[in-house]
Amino acid sequence: MTAYKDRSREELLQEKELLEAKFQEIKGKGLKLDMSRGKPSEAQLNLSMGMMDVLNSTTDLRCSVGVDCRNYGVLDGIPEAKELLADMTEVSPDNIIIYGNSSLNVMYDTVARSMTHGVCGSTPWCKLDEVKFLCPVPGYDRHFAITEYFGIKMINIPMTESGPDMDLVEQYVNNDPSVKGIWCVPKYSNPQGITYSDETVLRFARLKPAAEDFRIYWDNAYGIHHLYEDKQDNLIEILMACKQEGNPDMVFKFCSTSKVSFPGSGVAAIGASKRNIDFIKQQMTIQTIGHDKLNQLRHVRFFKDIHGMVLHMRKHADILRPKFETVLNGLKNELGGLEIGSWLEPRGGYFISFDALPGCAKAIVAKAKEAGLVMTPAGATFPYGKDPQDSNIRIAPSYPTPEELAVAVELFVLCVKLVSIDKILEEK
Amino acid sequence: MTAYKDRSREELLQEKELLEAKFQEIKGKGLKLDMSRGKPSEAQLNLSMGMMDVLNSTTDLRCSVGVDCRNYGVLDGIPEAKELLADMTEVSPDNIIIYGNSSLNVMYDTVARSMTHGVCGSTPWCKLDEVKFLCPVPGYDRHFAITEYFGIKMINIPMTESGPDMDLVEQYVNNDPSVKGIWCVPKYSNPQGITYSDETVLRFARLKPAAEDFRIYWDNAYGIHHLYEDKQDNLIEILMACKQEGNPDMVFKFCSTSKVSFPGSGVAAIGASKRNIDFIKQQMTIQTIGHDKLNQLRHVRFFKDIHGMVLHMRKHADILRPKFETVLNGLKNELGGLEIGSWLEPRGGYFISFDALPGCAKAIVAKAKEAGLVMTPAGATFPYGKDPQDSNIRIAPSYPTPEELAVAVELFVLCVKLVSIDKILEEK
Repeated sequence: MTAYKDRSREELLQEKELLEAKFQEIKGKGLKLDMSRGKPSEAQLNLSMGMMDVLNSTTDLRCSVGVDCRNYGVLDGIPEAKELLADMTEVSPDNIIIYGNSSLNVMYDTVARSMTHGVCGSTPWCKLDEVKFLCPVPGYDRHFAITEYFGIKMINIPMTESGPDMDLVEQYVNNDPSVKGIWCVPKYSNPQGITYSDETVLRFARLKPAAEDFRIYWDNAYGIHHLYEDKQDNLIEILMACKQEGNPDMVFKFCSTSKVSFPGSGVAAIGASKRNIDFIKQQMTIQTIGHDKLNQLRHVRFFKDIHGMVLHMRKHADILRPKFETVLNGLKNELGGLEIGSWLEPRGGYFISFDALPGCAKAIVAKAKEAGLVMTPAGATFPYGKDPQDSNIRIAPSYPTPEELAVAVELFVLCVKLVSIDKILEEK
Repeated sequence: MTAYKDRSREELLQEKELLEAKFQEIKGKGLKLDMSRGKPSEAQLNLSMGMMDVLNSTTDLRCSVGVDCRNYGVLDGIPEAKELLADMTEVSPDNIIIYGNSSLNVMYDTVARSMTHGVCGSTPWCKLDEVKFLCPVPGYDRHFAITEYFGIKMINIPMTESGPDMDLVEQYVNNDPSVKGIWCVPKYSNPQGITYSDETVLRFARLKPAAEDFRIYWDNAYGIHHLYEDKQDNLIEILMACKQEGNPDMVFKFCSTSKVSFPGSGVAAIGASKRNIDFIKQQMTIQTIGHDKLNQLRHVRFFKDIHGMVLHMRKHADILRPKFETVLNGLKNELGGLEIGSWLEPRGGYFISFDALPGCAKAIVAKAKEAGLVMTPAGATFPYGKDPQDSNIRIAPSYPTPEELAVAVELFVLCVKLVSIDKILEEK
């Protein structure tokens, strides 16, 4: 394949004509495809249907310590749910609080509480002139939305293939006391599918924050969401790493079963040091009468233990793997050598990140939409929705059926080619 | 019965001796009784066991508009859950947002959001020098805990038999712009079981708040929690009343099914004007991926509609009614005429409020604890846990079995008598 940039104007115009015809043909089909969000497919949801049967009107609904899960009581989670989610996020059950159905809500609460009550005795952030968060980019739009909502200034930190640029992270965290946090999706990151290297995690654990209330917001959303049994990324467990490095309180770990059982009807949790946990519980006693214990019980009775959950995740992988491969093969076969885009090959998680030629992402997403394919809005993977390069596009292959996905990829690469040709022509 | 205060020192000492012997006898039984919280009994929980069967692995889990309740999507509640809870709280489905499992959490969120983002565009409360809430007393300790947690100054407003002292409410709300809210349990109030009179509700609706961001925090926790079919309190619907009086945005209504289905595994909601709802949704899109739709579906499929829920509440009433009557008869038979305490006879809700002689409440609760009966801590029904009269005690008759309750009441009146005699002797 000759790279587009090395082709003549005439060659490009000829290629464009062919592609445009194909585009119109697909557009004519009136498709309705969605690759915008990391949403499990129906086949994946069906994997957990057994969970709808584990509790019924004849079931003993008491948890392991005899508490009737139907009634009030138990603020931080029933013991067996704590154990299951502690195993899932690789901490001790003493270092976990079980929440409701959404880890996003836990993260929101964590930031909201810091605004009004500080962190473990620090000044409430709403009383400070400026609060900053570091945001590895590209990243997760809903993280950025939380910090933006609270008026927290966001600073872009470029991602490398081993995680965030740690030189920059250290420079900010260790010197600027207004830097209070960093958003991380450390394993199979959203959207690139990068897992932080051992060195990256250890450099995190060894930070010397200028702010006592600096915390790492470690959203381990895809901790057990591998695509392959034989090729798995490994991530150093950060809570222990921080403890070993003398920073026991520096991290909040978030996880949920949203993409294990049912999105919206799962169980979320926070993992943290005893000191952080105690501080959070002070809020919880005011905030809630406790979260849904029957749903916690439902999860434990269905998965039984972490091994059961791991086996369950293999079934998810069997459904997701061919979808990822369809997209990756499509990109490789259709765009390989053209030098109009780059991407990584994740071994887990929910996304593939595509970097188009600078200035092309918005146009590609718009073009796809024109023919009925909804992508995550270009820019969404950056704070304030502003990708300075207008280059990054997040691809979410999970929701469409394999057949739909094949068409979606065909259409996507077509849009990439068409927009790139225009861009190159413009600059010739 | 001769009132204690009219008896001679000798008569009182003699009475005390008899009571003390009886007290020691009961104490010797090593009882473990709990009348501290409004917790449904096992018999009540059993009423909703059918809810554990309505969803199973063969059930269609799509809601009325075809959305798969297992997956992401739908921020503010599935339509049929909105209808059910809107009917429950007597508003239009357009004026409701379905939340998670705890109305306390909804109230907490509402205050927390006001702290950081104000109300519909007003200055965030954390930026103000002082924020005040009016607190009808006696009231609900968890309300007061929320406002205390956020450093909001609480002002006691005495309750009358028709609701809060509205002269005082009007004086504060209409003149002091730092008064931002009032906590109300308008029907079968916690703890007195008082229902606000028509005049009280209309005076609420006609307030002319000095603060644009003043809201009535209308916690209609016991809206359908009647004890009698033939003797029911009626409450004017406040959202409409406020609208009619030109104050459409002045109220937030809270409700939940915690004491209808399962505490901790119910569904909560907020009812408010379109303007308030729109403002709240701005937060929700940041805060959560939406609440548990499967649990919403479970509730709708079980109750079917509001009539089903009303019929269900009659079964709760059949269990609760004799318990209330046991307590009320015990109080009347044992304390009637002694002039050492007063109480009302609620027609619904979860509590009976007992007013002991001033300075006696703490001692009565301590005495009861000595013999194995846990009551709500004295003072809990007042802001900051401080009952200026040390007089009010909240009685929660729902949780014990009828047999336990009979013993608990016997013990309670004994403690009231003993402590009252000491008090009267002290002052003689």
